[in-house]
This record gives sequence, structure tokens and C-alpha cells, in this order.
Amino acid sequence: MSDISDTTSDLSTQLRLLKEARDAELRETYQRSLPFADAQFDRWERARSLGFGEGTSIYDSSALFGDVAVGKNTWIGPFTVLDGSGGGLTIGDYCSISAGVHIYTHDTVLWAVSGGVQQARKGRVVIGSNSYIGAQSVIVAGVTIGSRCVIAANSLVNRDVPDGSIIGGTPARHLGRVEGEGAEARLVYDSKGA
Amino acid sequence: MSDISDTTSDLSTQLRLLKEARDAELRETYQRSLPFADAQFDRWERARSLGFGEGTSIYDSSALFGDVAVGKNTWIGPFTVLDGSGGGLTIGDYCSISAGVHIYTHDTVLWAVSGGVQQARKGRVVIGSNSYIGAQSVIVAGVTIGSRCVIAANSLVNRDVPDGSIIGGTPARHLGRVEGEGAEARLVYDSKGA
Amino acid sequence: MSDISDTTSDLSTQLRLLKEARDAELRETYQRSLPFADAQFDRWERARSLGFGEGTSIYDSSALFGDVAVGKNTWIGPFTVLDGSGGGLTIGDYCSISAGVHIYTHDTVLWAVSGGVQQARKGRVVIGSNSYIGAQSVIVAGVTIGSRCVIAANSLVNRDVPDGSIIGGTPARHLGRVEGEGAEARLVYDSKGA
Repeated sequence: MSDISDTTSDLSTQLRLLKEARDAELRETYQRSLPFADAQFDRWERARSLGFGEGTSIYDSSALFGDVAVGKNTWIGPFTVLDGSGGGLTIGDYCSISAGVHIYTHDTVLWAVSGGVQQARKGRVVIGSNSYIGAQSVIVAGVTIGSRCVIAANSLVNRDVPDGSIIGGTPARHLGRVEGEGAEARLVYDSKGA
Repeated sequence: MSDISDTTSDLSTQLRLLKEARDAELRETYQRSLPFADAQFDRWERARSLGFGEGTSIYDSSALFGDVAVGKNTWIGPFTVLDGSGGGLTIGDYCSISAGVHIYTHDTVLWAVSGGVQQARKGRVVIGSNSYIGAQSVIVAGVTIGSRCVIAANSLVNRDVPDGSIIGGTPARHLGRVEGEGAEARLVYDSKGA
Repeated sequence: MSDISDTTSDLSTQLRLLKEARDAELRETYQRSLPFADAQFDRWERARSLGFGEGTSIYDSSALFGDVAVGKNTWIGPFTVLDGSGGGLTIGDYCSISAGVHIYTHDTVLWAVSGGVQQARKGRVVIGSNSYIGAQSVIVAGVTIGSRCVIAANSLVNRDVPDGSIIGGTPARHLGRVEGEGAEARLVYDSKGA
């Protein structure tokens, strides 16, 4: 018992030293201070290991379920949920999946209210290329989001979003359009808009 | 110093190997890729250790404060906060506490605006059985949520919710009713609905 | 290979024992059960190491980017994002930065919709003293929040907030005023209010 205690105590000390060393390195090199595991594990390596496209990165604190495919040069932030368990989740190139974004292809509403008798609802989700999903937004099962879309932070997306749309809110409403491409791309909000 | 450095460097390598081994195992068995600690620690075992009911599971990345009681067959997702520090939090059977849900029995609003002079506000929270709390929703101190309720994702719940209600939004409003039970349970939205 | 496997398996066991020991200690002393790294690493020590003011604490599961300055006696919760990479983030004394709050000084909207051609938008954020930021709220780049402000949980803050304001929603709207100071501080909601 005291051996176990000494060993775990030693591990605790070594973890603290490891955290301090890695934190000092990240602050020096990138001016960042990250949660232990996000600092410890390489986000580019994780993306490669998951078969995602070149230039894509994904933080350790992203939870993946089922069939998730991601293109190139997409940034996937910390505290995210990518659920492809209900029919597949596909995300294109050059997307920002901001911190705290949850994308679901299933929900357990009927499972819960039926006391476990009914099954989960399922529906695949597709997100085109060059789309921005703002922090803490939730995308529910069955939704298709086009290319060059902007989803404002803290939105709930529960219907399809055409290419080039700017939407926001809970549930998300149309706010404007993305016009132009590349160096010419710009955000045009509806005049009545927020 | 170089000894410490060698030891921490070795620990770093071993953690990476452990993460890779566990990740490969989870992907093979469950098609999941989880944050390090969520992958490492068993969520059924944590629920048992906390005295929760049989069949309940809780991810490592759930933060618990104070007096929290949970029934049977309830799913508690990652990145959740269950705060029973302000008078107790009780959750029934067959609930879905989706990822990112925060449930509070206290807030520090008056503590902050008074510069630390006033105390936290407190109030117990009760959630009945067979209720679904959607991802990223926040339930504030003092609220009672009935049985067979559906709280849409990304909602703020700041008042009591009667049995069988469907609500959503910030703050959450009435959207419809859950009718029937078990295999007959179904969602009926108000005709003016979302 | 079997050596590596034995070593990682041993590390896995030791991590489990360490988690159980630390969890038992936190439950006994503070009636808390925290995610592995939030339990393992001291939040007061992290705040000191980041140069934050006396009495301030910050959980391990808070992700910091760039230039972040925080005053005294401020509480920074788990699952938070403090981004000072776009021009600096400054937070005063006696603030509550609730769990799940994200504060940004940059966004990658134009980077994404332009396919990586355009740069991130940037803008510094300042939060005065004695302000409360509710759980899961998002504050976007360029915003100034005054002192003695209350931001309701689950809000999106995309414009400046004068001293003593109560706001909430997505996007956040005026809900009332904080009147008085210290022991006299109280919340006064607009009569039409929620």
C-alpha cells in the first residue's frame, strides 16, 4: 500500500514537472498556455492519424464519435464534439470549427422521453468548404451546411444552410450573404439586420 | 536537473504511447477518438464511485461540485458541469445530460458586482426522470425540471419546467409537449412553432 | 514491443491509482470531483505562474492564447477560452469568468470564407472590475465591457457594454442595471424585462 502510494505520489510530481516544462515551452514559442493534454499531444499528428486532409489540425480535447471525415487546412478547436455516429459527418477544406462547437448526427430525445424504449434519431451532416462555425454553436442531426457559410458564435443550427449564407441565433436565422471569393470575399449583412 | 529532465521526457514519451494505444483500441472497438482523460478513465466506474444509479455513466471531463445525486441509466456527457454546491442537485433515471450542459445551484453575480462583499445566491435544482437536456444548455440555480421534458440544445433555463414540456431558446420558451409514454411517446410542437 | 506495452500498461494503472487518490482527497476536502487534469494541477499556482493578480485562480482546462492580463481575486472556470492573440485581453479584479466562457480578440471568418487568402480580424477586449460573465457566454473581438456588469449565461456579446449594465441573449440586449456598490449593490431589471 505504501509502495503504491509512493509510486503514485512520484507520478504526480513528474506530471507536474512535465506540465511546467511543456507550458514554459508553449508560452516561449507560441505565447500559449493550454490544458494539460492539449499542450501534451500534437494536434497535426492527431489529424493525420484520423485520416484528415493535409494542413488540418485537431486539439486533444475534441471528442469524436463514429464516421468523421475532414478535408484539408481545416482548424478544429478545443472542447469540440464531432459526432458521425448517426450516418456520417463530412467537413470540407479551409473550415474553422471554433472552440466549443458541437456537431451531431444523432440525438437521444426519444430514447430519453420513452424511458429507453425508442431509438436515437439519426441523420448525416455535411459542411462544405470555406465555412466558419462560430464558438459554442451546435449543429443538429440531418443538417447540410453549404460552402462559404458563416455561422455566428453561440448559434443553434437546425435547418439546411445554403452556400454563402450568414446566419446566427437560437435557432439560427438568416443575417446576410458572403459575396465574392478569395481576396474579394466580404460579408454583406441584411439592412434590417442586427 | 538533467535527471529530472530525462524523467519528464520519458514520461512524455510514455504518455504519448499510452494515448496512441488507448486511442487505437477505442477506434477499433467503438469507432471513437476521445480526449486523453475521457479515453483513459472508465465512465461507468466513475458513476458507481459517485454513488449514481446502475447503468449511469459520466465522462471524466464532467466537473462536479457539492451534493449531486443521479438515478439509473442516465447518460452524462463530456465537458459538463454539475453543481450541487448551493443546495443539492438531483437528476432522475433515463435522462440525457448532453455534452456541454451546465447545471448550477449557485451563482456569484452579487459576489462579483459587490467586489466580494455579498454572498453567492443559492437554490437547489431537481430534474425528473426521462428528461433530455440538449447540448450546451445552461440551467440556473433554483429551477425544477419535470419528467419527460425536452430542453433544446443551446438553451438557458431560468424558470420551472412542468412535466412533458418541450422548451428552447435563451431564455427558454414553451415550444410544445411530449405526449404518450414508452413506445407511444412523441413530440408535439405548437402550431405557431419554431 | 512487449516492453513498451508493459511500460504503458503500468503507466495506465498508475494514472488510475493517482486519479482515484486525488479524487478521494478532493471529495473528502471540498466535496468536488473534477476532470483528471483540473484535479491534478493547482489553479492558484497556475494563475501566479501566468502573472495574474493575487487571489485569482484558473482551472487547468482553460485555454489561453496571446497576451492575457488578469487582476486580483478573479475566478476563471473550467472549459474557458481566453484569447489575447489579437491585440490583448485585459480582465479586472473580482470578476467571475464562469465555466465555458469564451473571450476572443480575433476571428477567422474572412480567413475561412476566402479560402485562407484573407487575414484574421483582430480587436482587443477589456473587461472592467466586479463584472460577472455567465456560463457558456461568448465575447467577440473588439468589445469593451465596463465594471459591475452582469452578462447572463449563454449570451453572445458583440458590442460595448457600459458600466453597471445587465445584459443577456444572442446577441445580448439590455436587461437592467446594477445599482449601488458593495453591500448595497443590487440588480434592477427593466419593467418590460424577461
